[in-house]
Parts: sequence; structure tokens; C-alpha cells
Amino acid sequence: MTATQLTLVQIDNYGPWTVTPEPRREMDLQTMQSRLFADLAQFVGSRDGYVFFTRFDNMVAVTNGLDLTDHELLQETIRNRYPVTVSLGVGVDDRPIEALETATERVQDAGSAQSADRAEVLAGEFNGDAGDDDVRIAHFDVNDATGKYTDRLNEFDSFIRIEQGYASLMRYMREAHGALSFFVGGDNVISVCPDLGVEEYHAAIEHVADEAEVQLKVGVGRGPTAHEAGIAAKHALEDCRYEGTLVEFA
Amino acid sequence: MTATQLTLVQIDNYGPWTVTPEPRREMDLQTMQSRLFADLAQFVGSRDGYVFFTRFDNMVAVTNGLDLTDHELLQETIRNRYPVTVSLGVGVDDRPIEALETATERVQDAGSAQSADRAEVLAGEFNGDAGDDDVRIAHFDVNDATGKYTDRLNEFDSFIRIEQGYASLMRYMREAHGALSFFVGGDNVISVCPDLGVEEYHAAIEHVADEAEVQLKVGVGRGPTAHEAGIAAKHALEDCRYEGTLVEFA
Amino acid sequence: MTATQLTLVQIDNYGPWTVTPEPRREMDLQTMQSRLFADLAQFVGSRDGYVFFTRFDNMVAVTNGLDLTDHELLQETIRNRYPVTVSLGVGVDDRPIEALETATERVQDAGSAQSADRAEVLAGEFNGDAGDDDVRIAHFDVNDATGKYTDRLNEFDSFIRIEQGYASLMRYMREAHGALSFFVGGDNVISVCPDLGVEEYHAAIEHVADEAEVQLKVGVGRGPTAHEAGIAAKHALEDCRYEGTLVEFA
Amino acid sequence: MTATQLTLVQIDNYGPWTVTPEPRREMDLQTMQSRLFADLAQFVGSRDGYVFFTRFDNMVAVTNGLDLTDHELLQETIRNRYPVTVSLGVGVDDRPIEALETATERVQDAGSAQSADRAEVLAGEFNGDAGDDDVRIAHFDVNDATGKYTDRLNEFDSFIRIEQGYASLMRYMREAHGALSFFVGGDNVISVCPDLGVEEYHAAIEHVADEAEVQLKVGVGRGPTAHEAGIAAKHALEDCRYEGTLVEFA
Repeated sequence: MTATQLTLVQIDNYGPWTVTPEPRREMDLQTMQSRLFADLAQFVGSRDGYVFFTRFDNMVAVTNGLDLTDHELLQETIRNRYPVTVSLGVGVDDRPIEALETATERVQDAGSAQSADRAEVLAGEFNGDAGDDDVRIAHFDVNDATGKYTDRLNEFDSFIRIEQGYASLMRYMREAHGALSFFVGGDNVISVCPDLGVEEYHAAIEHVADEAEVQLKVGVGRGPTAHEAGIAAKHALEDCRYEGTLVEFA
Repeated sequence: MTATQLTLVQIDNYGPWTVTPEPRREMDLQTMQSRLFADLAQFVGSRDGYVFFTRFDNMVAVTNGLDLTDHELLQETIRNRYPVTVSLGVGVDDRPIEALETATERVQDAGSAQSADRAEVLAGEFNGDAGDDDVRIAHFDVNDATGKYTDRLNEFDSFIRIEQGYASLMRYMREAHGALSFFVGGDNVISVCPDLGVEEYHAAIEHVADEAEVQLKVGVGRGPTAHEAGIAAKHALEDCRYEGTLVEFA
Repeated sequence: MTATQLTLVQIDNYGPWTVTPEPRREMDLQTMQSRLFADLAQFVGSRDGYVFFTRFDNMVAVTNGLDLTDHELLQETIRNRYPVTVSLGVGVDDRPIEALETATERVQDAGSAQSADRAEVLAGEFNGDAGDDDVRIAHFDVNDATGKYTDRLNEFDSFIRIEQGYASLMRYMREAHGALSFFVGGDNVISVCPDLGVEEYHAAIEHVADEAEVQLKVGVGRGPTAHEAGIAAKHALEDCRYEGTLVEFA
Repeated sequence: MTATQLTLVQIDNYGPWTVTPEPRREMDLQTMQSRLFADLAQFVGSRDGYVFFTRFDNMVAVTNGLDLTDHELLQETIRNRYPVTVSLGVGVDDRPIEALETATERVQDAGSAQSADRAEVLAGEFNGDAGDDDVRIAHFDVNDATGKYTDRLNEFDSFIRIEQGYASLMRYMREAHGALSFFVGGDNVISVCPDLGVEEYHAAIEHVADEAEVQLKVGVGRGPTAHEAGIAAKHALEDCRYEGTLVEFA
């Protein structure tokens, strides 16, 4: 059984900040959001976790391997270097959606995302009993995206197709398994899953082929942290590429 | 009539680079992609253009106000500071999708996105006859996203709803008007449009309400550049907020 | 005759900010200072200017080619993305030290560097009559620094020698010519100079050899902007390398 | 007795890279160097170490608390995100200069800083027996730098005075104590020292007052890591400010 530790990272009072005293230049907001995400990716990633940009004002991280002290330091370093602060909620569960439910509630309980009074919440439960199989990462990509889309269609039509495939997969994986799926660029989607078998991944791929007409393949890995599970998943995806298969486990 | 100048930014040979000699740490890829986007946002944004992260290995920019020399400098500065290079294709049209079609073809004609032989393409047509009304930007957001989703549901379920709304809007606007819509974080979507009227925006909002059950509102702006059109659109969106309306023009 | 436009960039109220409510993590301050400098280097550099990190809370830029609107935008983009703001003073003169005197006074006149009441000063005079020969850049480096120091001594002893050479050059060039010299990394020093001849550069090099026992060579360039003068100076320095000379003009 | 673990970070083959195929834009080099330093500051700093930008192509870090695996990861993440790679040498000694001597030799033994054949060296000795008193950090600043210099002189003349004070202190501390001193911005210098007493710090301050006519004060801290020693030193420096003293120990 898995034990996924998820952290919700929510920028405090961001909506109001972006329009006070008046709307700010959009490209400055894009720059700040992206660099904040990049810093989180480095902080969490160098501790073997994963962060997904999600909505940028709200980001989801797999933080198996990071403890309370790590989370405190993360808040402090953001406070020292950005014009905004972040609240962090943490949860653990074998079903990722449940872990995120806990993480989100811990932040919501302390106040609204658009409250000037709520800042730097840090609450939740950490994975005290770490095991080698706590995390499952599934790395999906689109079969021959370059040949079918990137080298043939205009970029927006390629993008629409990838987005439709992603939207289909994200709904299916959440409803069927409580798994959380995130588009990570190119034609890649990374899912944080409970312990699923080969047949369940084949079913997910078939569902997306039927509903969105996008053909996916997937590599699946396991490990005590997101990085270890994820790098194994990437290697398994390379196996798919060489073997011509749709589902490979590390 | 509009005259939107769009630039496709495509990282050269990126797919192969990410797995050579073997798969790279995912969080390092996320960091690099995000910081590359942030640098593009600053370069283009400080010249009053807009860039959208799109798929990160392929990004779409509205570059009215940037000429060939600006594009050459952009390529050079990326080459000097990143482990990758970018190809740039440029097109102009009153329908954004057509401009992007041209921009994409210019890059595709030179070679595949996954070719080791193709690097730093720079080709296309620039908007030689700039006018005050060349660009239309529509800034959509979700009515009371904080109250309905962010402060109530777990983050992934909030995210799914926003994504479904975005997927519906992006398809509709592309098919009905050749407009290009991009999620920019939070509950915000920015569309690059031809010259549309109030009724057309109301129709788009109704379509998304029906298909995805997400209630949008929109502020619309015009200008010689994306920034000027976009900042006007943001102010119009604030008017929606104060007036309680769904569509406002700057 | 030269006409160097210099901008002083001073972070507002920085000293107090770094210790309020209590001293901040040093590495976070280093990160923020360096990234602020890097952003200035990109903004100014992509407009063909130069910025030198100087003391990080006070930075000196050669801004021929940047006007008042550019300076306003620079302030705005920093305000939108950093936890600090900057004041800018601008001056023009054929002697760089005089231009910097003006630039500094404009900021000082508005208030102290450690005043909570003074923020985002923008004042000074701009170079309205730009000419092809307005800027002189001299690019010095140490002859065979790698062979003599980097590959032989421990890093701090290499560093001390380079620093002593820099300290000697900076004092001499300021006193003799009103030129401003900045260490830019490695064994490189860039000086912003008035119109000097070959003999004057030889004299500077001899002075440093005598006083600090460091052997410099220099490439000198001219142009309407710092970048054009500076890239010419770099090429001239390469001529020194190939010709075995100590002073070369582009 | 102290046990300072120092790491030399040296960019591989950087000199040649900056001029191949021809000299690169100076502001792009400045941007890349500064951001590389900032990333090192975050990686090392979040593990409670310190990094000093030194010459940018060669940087010195106090890495008590970072082991071999941390150093390997640091190299990997740089390789994945920058157009350059770094070599790392590590040494431990109670006299910082000796630790740096070892660290530097480990890199030099493997090849020249300007060799195309040498890349990503990782060699040296780590501090296996960590103790609470391993590191001494002394944080110097200039008495009333704002009143005496920043608010009164032009920025370059302020800068010259601070530089002269720094040059004097760096030489004295290295020769008298094998301590390594680094300018960190503003009017601040941080020294990595062996175990020194109050009289020795007073002597250093008097030396600099005599030789460079710059009046320093200092806060001194100790700890198992640079951060713990350094934050204690910052607080001690605040004591100097409130007490009106020149030397305070945490």
C-alpha cells in the first residue's frame, strides 16, 4: 500500500495583491509565478520530492522525505525573497486525493485564500513511518506526438489535442482511482497514484483513446520518494519506446 | 480589423535532450522550462508583448512591437545562458490562428522539432504597418472561484473544474473565431482574438456555462500591443467585478 | 568627446529591511541581491547598456540608449516582482565620475538610503543628443591568470592577487581620468572611460604592475552604447592575446 | 578547535567558453554567472552552508553539513540546467586557508581550469566528525557607512572606500590567521575564521582603521554550520549597534 505525503502550497491573498493598488503587468505576474514555482521545484526536488505548477497560485507537491522543519524553511526562504508569502497544508494517505483533501482543509480551516488576515499557515500531518513503496508515479506521454502533431499542425491545434488528452486522463484517474494527474510540458503527464496494476493502466489509456482520440503510453515506478519513483517511471517509459508497448513497470 | 503578430518559440531537439544520455531529473527540467519561460516573459513583456507558456517546449507569443532584430537578440541571449537553443517562426493575420499557422509552418519547413540538425530557425513575416487597433485581448476569469472552489474543495477538484472550463473555452474560441486561449494561473484565461463584439463574448460565456458548468466573466481591451490591449482588458474585468456584469469593454 | 550616461540603482531602505523584524538568512539575501542584479543585467543589457553589481544595494549602470520611459518600466517591473523597490538617479558627462556624481546627488537629494519615507526616486538628466562615439569601454584582464594563479595557488590566494590588481587599477583610473572600473568575474575588469589614448592605457598598466605586481592587458572599444563599445573592446582584447600585446584599440 | 569544511566550486573550461566561437555579450555572462551563484546559494544555504561569489568562475563555499551525495547532486542539477559544468574540491581543517588549499589542489590535480578534457571533478575529504563548534563566522560592517559614504559621496567614491577597507581586512585576516574574508554587498564582509579571541578581532579592526582609514565593527558566532554560526554573528553585530561597541561575541 502506498502512503503519499502531499503538500498544498497556496500563495496568501494573491488575487487582491495582483490588482492592488491597480492591475499589475501580466508578464511580471507570469515571471514571478514561474520563478516561484521554479524555486519550489529546486527546493523540493533536491530533497527528492516533486512539485507541479497546477494553478500557480495553488501548487501541489509530493513531499515524502520532507519534514516539518523543511516546510518551515521553505516558507521562510520564500518570505525573504518574494513580495508574497505562502501557506502550506500537508496530508498523508494511500489515496492521493485523500491526502490532498487533508492538506487543503488544513489551509482552508485557517482562513480564505483571499484574506488579508491569513498568512503562512503551516499545518497537517507528516509521513512518520517512511517505507520503500510509499509512492507510485506514472509517467504518460503521447505516442509519436512529434510526428502526429508538433511537426504537422499549427502549435495551438497540437496544444488543443494534448490538452483534451490531459483533461480526459485527469478526470478518469481522479474518479477511478483518486489519482492526481499533472501536465508537465511537451506531451507529458505525470500521475501520482495509489497501487495500481497493469490492467488498470491499460484501461486508463483505452478510456483516453476513446474519449479524446489521443493515444498514450505509460511507464510506472515505485519508491520511497517521488524522485525515486519518478525516475524509475521515466526509464520504464523508455522501455515502452524500445519495446513498442503501451504499459511498462520499472 | 486586427493584425496580430504571433511568434512560435520552439526549443530545438528538446525531447531527445531530456533523455540523453539518460532521463534527467524531472524537477530540473521543470525548473529550466519555467525559468526559460520567465525570461521570455521579461524580454517580450518589457517590449509590451505577451508570452504564454503553452507546452513549455513550444510557447506562443504575441509580438506586435518586436521586430526581426529583437527576435535575433532573443535567440542569442537564450543561446548564451541555457543548455538549449530556440527556433522562432513569426506570422501576422487578423485571425490569430492563421498567424500561428504561418509561424508554425516557418519552423516546420526548416526541420523536425526532434532533429539534431535543425537549430535556431528564424523566419516569418513581421507586422510592418503597425496600427493602434492591431491587437484584441480578452481576459476571462471564473466568477467567485475563491468562494465556490478554492476555499471549499480540495485543490485538485478545484483544478479539475477550472481545467474543464478552460478546455471548453479554448475549443469554442478557436473553432468559432480562430482565437487562441491560454490559462495563465489562478482562475484566469487570456484569449488573443480577432475583432469580436459583445454578443460574441456572451455566446462564448454561455457555451462554457452549458458545456462545463463554469461561469466566466470577461474584460476586453484593444491596443497596438498585447500589453496595452491586455492592461485595458484587466481594467475592464475590474469593471465587471464592480458592476456585476459578465462582459465589459475597455 | 564622450558623453557617458550613468544610472545609479539604489535599493530603497535596504539596510533596515535586512534586519527587520530580525536578521534574515544570509544566503537568501545573497540570492535576492544576485537575482535582482541579473534581472537588471538582462533589462539594461538587452537595450545595449551595461550594469555592474558594485555593492549590490547600490549598482552602477551605463545607460546610453535607455530613456526615461525605460527607467520607469525598470522600476515598475522590480516593484512587481521583488520585496524591495529601487531609486534611480541619472547623469551625463564626458567624465564618467561626474556623470555618476550627478546621478548619485539626484537620489541623495530625495532622501537617505535608509529612510522608510523615500522610495522609487526617478530623477536626472538623459543623453538627448546621442552620438556614435559617446561611450568608451576598456576591458582589462590579467596576463595568464590561469597559469600563474588559478592552476597553481589556492583559490583565496589567487583571489587576493586579482583583488589587489583591481584595487590598484580602480584607484588609479578614477584619480587620473575620472574613469570607473568594475571587477566582473574571473580576472576581468571593465572600465568606463573618457577618451583616452594608447599611452594613457600603458601608463595605467605599468602603474598596476608596479603597485600590485599584477600584469594586465587591455582592449579598448568605442560606440554609441556600452554594448557596442564593450563587444569591440572584447575583440580588441582577443587581438592582444594573439598579437602578444598589452594595449589594443578596436 | 574549529573544523571548517570548504568546497571550491570551479566552472569547467569557462574562459574558452566565453569567447567561443567568439566573445559573448557581457550582460549575458553577468546574468548567467549571477544566477549560477544564486542557485548555489540556495542549494548550499538551505542545507545551512554559505557560498561566496568570490570570482564567479571560482566560488568558495563553507559546506559543513553537506556530504558527498549532496555534492554529487549539486553537480548534476547544474549540468541539467546550465550551459556549463562545475568541478568541486573539498577540504577540512581548523585553519580555513588550509582547507581551501586541499580543496583547490583536488581540482588542480585533475586538470587545468581551461582544459576541454577536465569536467565535473569531485574529490576531497569531508568532515566526518561534526561538532557544535566546528565553524566560526565573523560578520564585519562599516560604522555608519550610510552617513559617512552612501548619503554623501558619489557611489564610486563610496565604493572605493569600502573596497579599500575590504582589501585591507582580507589580506590581514589571511596572513595573521588563515581566515578567508568575502565582501557580501553593501558595507558587509563575512570572514570564515579559526577560533580567535576578542583581542584578535580588535587588532584586525585597528589594522584596517590605520591602513585604509575605514572603521569596522564585528559580530562573531559559532556553530556546527556556517548558517548557525553566521546568524549568531549577525545578532552579535546588532548588539554592537545597540551597545556602541566594536566587537561582540554571540
